[in-house]
Amino acid sequence: MPILTLTTDFGSRDGYAGVLKGVIWGLCPAARIADLSHEIPPQDVLAGALTLRRAAPFFPAGTVHLAVVDPGVGTERRPLALLLGEHFFVGPDNGLFTAVLEDAERKGWPVEIVHLTEARYFLPQVSRTFHGRDLFAPVAAHLASGIPLADLGPAVADPRRLPLPRPEKTPGGWLAHVVHVDSFGNCATDLPAASLKDPAAVVFHLRGSEICGLAETYGQGRPGDLVALADSEGFVEIAAVGGSAAALTGARLGDVLEVIE
Amino acid sequence: MPILTLTTDFGSRDGYAGVLKGVIWGLCPAARIADLSHEIPPQDVLAGALTLRRAAPFFPAGTVHLAVVDPGVGTERRPLALLLGEHFFVGPDNGLFTAVLEDAERKGWPVEIVHLTEARYFLPQVSRTFHGRDLFAPVAAHLASGIPLADLGPAVADPRRLPLPRPEKTPGGWLAHVVHVDSFGNCATDLPAASLKDPAAVVFHLRGSEICGLAETYGQGRPGDLVALADSEGFVEIAAVGGSAAALTGARLGDVLEVIE
Amino acid sequence: MPILTLTTDFGSRDGYAGVLKGVIWGLCPAARIADLSHEIPPQDVLAGALTLRRAAPFFPAGTVHLAVVDPGVGTERRPLALLLGEHFFVGPDNGLFTAVLEDAERKGWPVEIVHLTEARYFLPQVSRTFHGRDLFAPVAAHLASGIPLADLGPAVADPRRLPLPRPEKTPGGWLAHVVHVDSFGNCATDLPAASLKDPAAVVFHLRGSEICGLAETYGQGRPGDLVALADSEGFVEIAAVGGSAAALTGARLGDVLEVIE
Repeated sequence: MPILTLTTDFGSRDGYAGVLKGVIWGLCPAARIADLSHEIPPQDVLAGALTLRRAAPFFPAGTVHLAVVDPGVGTERRPLALLLGEHFFVGPDNGLFTAVLEDAERKGWPVEIVHLTEARYFLPQVSRTFHGRDLFAPVAAHLASGIPLADLGPAVADPRRLPLPRPEKTPGGWLAHVVHVDSFGNCATDLPAASLKDPAAVVFHLRGSEICGLAETYGQGRPGDLVALADSEGFVEIAAVGGSAAALTGARLGDVLEVIE
Repeated sequence: MPILTLTTDFGSRDGYAGVLKGVIWGLCPAARIADLSHEIPPQDVLAGALTLRRAAPFFPAGTVHLAVVDPGVGTERRPLALLLGEHFFVGPDNGLFTAVLEDAERKGWPVEIVHLTEARYFLPQVSRTFHGRDLFAPVAAHLASGIPLADLGPAVADPRRLPLPRPEKTPGGWLAHVVHVDSFGNCATDLPAASLKDPAAVVFHLRGSEICGLAETYGQGRPGDLVALADSEGFVEIAAVGGSAAALTGARLGDVLEVIE
Repeated sequence: MPILTLTTDFGSRDGYAGVLKGVIWGLCPAARIADLSHEIPPQDVLAGALTLRRAAPFFPAGTVHLAVVDPGVGTERRPLALLLGEHFFVGPDNGLFTAVLEDAERKGWPVEIVHLTEARYFLPQVSRTFHGRDLFAPVAAHLASGIPLADLGPAVADPRRLPLPRPEKTPGGWLAHVVHVDSFGNCATDLPAASLKDPAAVVFHLRGSEICGLAETYGQGRPGDLVALADSEGFVEIAAVGGSAAALTGARLGDVLEVIE
């Protein structure tokens, strides 16, 4: 039962995401297709990379993840397909797959990457401005139908990588970074909670607010309190009980979280 | 052909809703999954309850409705699964199922409720902050695959219930309440249109605007006119012909609609 | 494998779009259903017509396109089903199908249109305010299941048509119109790029900004530059490299693009 996911900056208003499903079903009628997000901020490749990392691992082996955040569409940037462990990824070579690629490498999973050059797997007409529809969606559908990765083009050894945010060690703790602010106003960071020596004694500073200790759940505090806790991927997150930490603190993507151990 | 629906306050931006589908398809590959709404206002359990009531009855028997509006995630609130008539519901015990439960009781349908304690039906790792993904989605998938409700945990006799809005009888008519303002600006209320003695003669007051008589369709009036009519579930709704009643009147959720008979 | 698409102005917040899937799966359990857009501006029939035209051709033969932008719901406007070439369309007779109908006529495809009068293909109860759910969705599901079009009602020879925007020829070029501003801020127009005599030498004026020549890709310019190029359907589009042409120029739907050849 072929499964695909879609991650784009297309929005949900214009029908651009819907049309991908038409192309996919035309080539792979049995496909199940999940929208991961079509609300990646326009042309924000890093945000797309971090969204893929959070969501892809929860899909079954064999899933094809189609991701299109593609400011360079129509230029010489390469179209790629990747096999990382048991998951396929299809999209532009602009760093969008950095995070899932690094995770695969760290885990020692098999990695295969190809440059999509075989036009017989594209739509007959490829526009210059919508490779998501004309090139990436048909390739993803062919992969989901069982076409081997190696048939799609020559191997690539040097996929483009983005610098991912990483926490910096300081003498007294860490400088971490807000890497995601979700629609609840929860502020995810790049600091693994497992890095903390004494979770009960740690102190966090975010935009002038101080939070003492790592809580176990959102409910450990009174409504409106700021709490730090391990998020569902194991990273330190700043949240507000029954509210929005982003609204309370003014925190934004890229802000520094000072951690004092 | 297993069918599931999703109702959450996760938004569509962060991939949280998409990941539920990955978990479900990993356990129940044949599942068809409909998004009812991921735009329930954050942590607004009552809004989730009313959305479920409006939408669930239009799905086939056997559908599993997964609903996660869960401010108490990670606390001691119970995770539940319910069988109400021929529909299953899975989510937190915080009142989210009050409206569908009361409807089932009023109709005399069979009601079974269990406390989800059997961890073998969860993901192997259950985070403290994302039970939608780690606990509720896998249980919903198992139910959709045919696991009996009784296998999931012990029976529950006292599910938590929210006070639902209800119209009050007055000497001269009713005090009803705006229970939903939709994206067209239509204002749904809690007053069944069938309660009106003489629909043609009734007068409605909403935020200082007066509307005379119950119309039959949106088109019964000139553009910009306010009209009262029976909505598609049979409740009195205030609408504006070709426009937004909420914008015209300033009406908001919880406002009183005075009904003079 | 029956495929349906949904195009509405229902928004994604209230569950109105999700409920259509419940009705469809109740009648046609094998259906695959793609959301094209539920963000058509409320009651903007022309915007719906242009969205259908852009997206429908990329779906496989036999797809049923359910479209509901229906300010006249409950009035005497006719409910319709159409077979245009190998695609079905279902929705209100208010001009919503003008663009796909004209495209089919221009290509010489077979066209059949019927007035939906056979109530046995509707839900047992048809409300006055939600024909999408009670009438159009069940008819679409029956069509997807193989019920012949002619069984649904008598033939219609005079479907309602909207005037579609068209470019005007001038002595020195064209007056074209902005027909769509997408979520990237790209401004699509009604002028086929193939109409330009000398694409390299043409000059465009939009809201006081001048753009010289038709570029081949978004990347042909520096960040922030305005460029004109052929969009993925072959029409002239004004875009900003790495940004929003709508924000840069203030352009809006309906604006004139002056083209000097």
